[in-house]
Order: sequence, then C-alpha cells, then structure tokens
Amino acid sequence: MTKFDEATQAIRVDETTYDVCLDPGYSIGGPLNGGYLMAVLLRAVVDASPHDHPVTTSAQFLRAPRPGPARVRLEQIKAGRTAAMTRATLIQDDTSFIETLVTTATLGDVAPDWTDRPSADMPPVERCVVLPAPKPESNMTLNAQMEMAFDPPTIGWLDGNPTGRPEARAYFRMAEPQDPDPYVLALAVDALPPVVFSAGARGWAPTVDLTWHLRALPAPGWLTLLGSGRMISDGWFDEEVEVWDSAGRLVAQSRQLARVGRG
Amino acid sequence: MTKFDEATQAIRVDETTYDVCLDPGYSIGGPLNGGYLMAVLLRAVVDASPHDHPVTTSAQFLRAPRPGPARVRLEQIKAGRTAAMTRATLIQDDTSFIETLVTTATLGDVAPDWTDRPSADMPPVERCVVLPAPKPESNMTLNAQMEMAFDPPTIGWLDGNPTGRPEARAYFRMAEPQDPDPYVLALAVDALPPVVFSAGARGWAPTVDLTWHLRALPAPGWLTLLGSGRMISDGWFDEEVEVWDSAGRLVAQSRQLARVGRG
Repeated sequence: MTKFDEATQAIRVDETTYDVCLDPGYSIGGPLNGGYLMAVLLRAVVDASPHDHPVTTSAQFLRAPRPGPARVRLEQIKAGRTAAMTRATLIQDDTSFIETLVTTATLGDVAPDWTDRPSADMPPVERCVVLPAPKPESNMTLNAQMEMAFDPPTIGWLDGNPTGRPEARAYFRMAEPQDPDPYVLALAVDALPPVVFSAGARGWAPTVDLTWHLRALPAPGWLTLLGSGRMISDGWFDEEVEVWDSAGRLVAQSRQLARVGRG
Repeated sequence: MTKFDEATQAIRVDETTYDVCLDPGYSIGGPLNGGYLMAVLLRAVVDASPHDHPVTTSAQFLRAPRPGPARVRLEQIKAGRTAAMTRATLIQDDTSFIETLVTTATLGDVAPDWTDRPSADMPPVERCVVLPAPKPESNMTLNAQMEMAFDPPTIGWLDGNPTGRPEARAYFRMAEPQDPDPYVLALAVDALPPVVFSAGARGWAPTVDLTWHLRALPAPGWLTLLGSGRMISDGWFDEEVEVWDSAGRLVAQSRQLARVGRG
C-alpha cells in the first residue's frame, strides 16, 4: 500500500457511512487539495458500489475541511445494471464540506471507437521544468507527493512572464512509485496551478464546481496534464484539464468553474 | 409570459418544495429533453435563492419522467454572500428522476477580462440548413419549440453522410419570440442532436451527467451552439457545447457524458 493509498483510505462503518482521515500532506498553503479530497470520497463510493470505477464525478466545494478525522456519508440514488449513482458528502463536525454526485460503472480494456488528438503538443519531459521544493513555511505539502515537469512557457508566470492566456501543462506522476489509477487521476485533474496564473491573476482561486470523467484506465508511466480555460469574466474562470496516459490515450477530462483570486 | 416560461414554471409550496407540470411539448421521441427538465429545476432553485442566476449546474439523469405533475425538492447546502449552493431533485411518484447540484450567484454586465475565440467557425445563418418538421408519429415535439439552422456538414449524417467525427453546430432561437435567458440556455446546451450521430452512431443516447456553466447573460438574438466530442469508447462519449450570443460573447459551456445508443 502506498502513502497515497493510505491517505485516501475509507473504512466502512455501515452501508452509508465511512470513516476517513484527511492527511495534512496534501495541503496547498493551508487548505487541502480538492483532487485529494475527491479521491477520498471516491474510495468510499466505489467500495459501496457494485461497479468498479468512478466514471463521472461532480463535486461542489462548500468549505475547506481541516486535516484529521472526517466522514463520508453515502446515499445510493440508483443502482442500475450498467451504472450506479451515488450522492457522497464529506462531513466534519456535523457540517458538509463537499457535495458530490458520482456515477460508477465498470470500464473495459478496449480501444476507443474514435478519439481526437491531445489539445496541445508537449515538449519531451527532459525539456520540461521541475520546480524547486517549496519553502516549508509555505505549507505546500502537496508538492512532495507528486512529481511534475512543466511545459516551460506555461510556468513562466513564476518568473514574471505569464503567457497572457489561461493555460498550464505538465507531466505528472506520484513521487512514491505507483501506477496511476482512478484515484491518482482524481488528484491529477486538480494538480496543476490555476490556469489563470498564466493570464496574470494570483492568489487562492477557490473551486466552486469540479466535474470530471474517467474515460479509460491509465497505463503505467507519466500522465500528461493539459490545462486551459476559455474565459475569465466577472471574477469567474473555467479550467479544463485533459489527462493522457503514457500509451497516448485520453484517460480523464475535467472542467472546473472557480473564482479568480484577489492575491 | 411565453409558452416556454409557462412550461418551466415552478410554484412554491413551501421553502423546500415546488410544484411543476412537465410539458409534453418537449419530447424527443418519447422522453422529455434533459435541457428542458433542467430549466424547470432551475426555476425553483433560483426562486428560492438570494442570488439571481444559476451559475453552475451539475445534473445526473436517473430516469425519464413522463409529462404531467411533478415536484422539485430543494435542500439548501450553503448560503454564501457571493454564491449559494442547492441540491435540487425532480420527483414524480415519490421517486427521484434527476439529481442536481446548483450554485447560484449574481452575474454583472461586464466585459470579460480575457476570452478565447469560438472553437469553430460558422457559415452565415442563411447558408445553414433548416430541417423539415418531423412527422407527428415521431413524437419529436421539442422541434416545434425552437428554430435551429445547422452548419451543413454536421447534419450530413441525416442523408447518410456523417463527417466521421463527433460534432454538431447550429444557430438556435426559440420559435416563439423570446430573448434568451439562463433558462433558454439550459435548453440550448442540450438541444443539438447527439454529437456521436455525425460519427456514425444512431439511437437514443442517454445522458448520464450534464454539467453546464452560465458565463454571461446572453444578448437578444440568435445563439450559436458549437458541439463537439473528444472520445467515443466502451459505449461512452463526451459532448461539449459552447454557446455564444449574438454579441460574440461566450455565455454558456456544457459537457455531458452519455451512453452511445444501440439504434
């Protein structure tokens, strides 16, 4: 069992309740990463489902939970032959922190009938930029859990050279060797810096809704994360992330609507 | 009040319950259109919210309700200063038919800080294709509620000439003159034929999850719907729809995950 598997464990209490322990190792300057929190919720959902994979997850983020014990409350909405739908809520101190609707199904290992190409080209990983470890006082503990190698222009904002458009692209894998699986993908779709940073915005950009679809089971190796946005307006922005695996298959698609930070 | 306003009316019973009447005029061969059903749900959500607009809606479709009386049950999840979150469920015969999570907020009339261009070019409306009215026995009553003018290649599948990739593009407006509003947009994001039809698939393509974001309040006039998909695999496909208004602004973005039909 990897550290990530441990940090996302969900222990069955009864049919509708799972105990979890939110790990302080997934902090982004204080709040815990939304992708990590989705992975925790999805462990409970899949454990209670007759199906194997979280095919579609819609999460609305209400509040930022703190590290430590929490619960996942499940409500089975529909149990179908092909797919089951579950409402899963992350609860701490009797308060809801994240509301999700999840459809589980079992994906096969089949070739796509039709697939588009990746939405952007990536330079080879050895020409990408690995960032230095953040200072401990920044409380960016998430960074130690994963390795990312950025497409250089999309991380230019760090040196005061934003590209001027919302985008972020990187290769991604877990720091502790682990083949990607649907829970790693839940982390991956929310692992890039907010795409608005490369359009010049800064500061904490809280996600309001993040919906992602698991399209295929990922092959071992690096994942490629292609992040972009279509519009920044009235304090809101969208962020799309495509995840491609090392075999060149689209394995996940996400879109979030988030608030532009005031930092 | 237009026919559409009437068909989407939600009458407050109490804080958490609204009565609605599902109109048989929004049928697509039997089942009611998912966008129409979202519009009905959103009327109730916005009426009960301190905010004016449904900014993000995630809907999971469990079953197809029949025309006639139904209820919307609301659960207020969070009421914030900027945004409120609500769970809304469409109920008929004590059974849930659609589960949604909705964030409401109030959008201003401001220019975007940054916007991308439309994802595809459209020919002028006079070079687009208007389809003949469907035969009454097809029970496609939805078609009478709206006017659509299709980008010719994307409707070629009707004559046996699919483009070979998932896409659908059209101009859209209500048949009864009505300026577009967020409820019309809820209908619009699910109004195109399934994008898989132009990739050669046929038959009823049930939506599992549809998430859409209201990005701006639409100007009067035609809407432009740009639909596409990234992958068709293992019986699942994604469909993205961008909606642009007559002033050239991105007003809505949707993505649905749906099952490929067996027709």
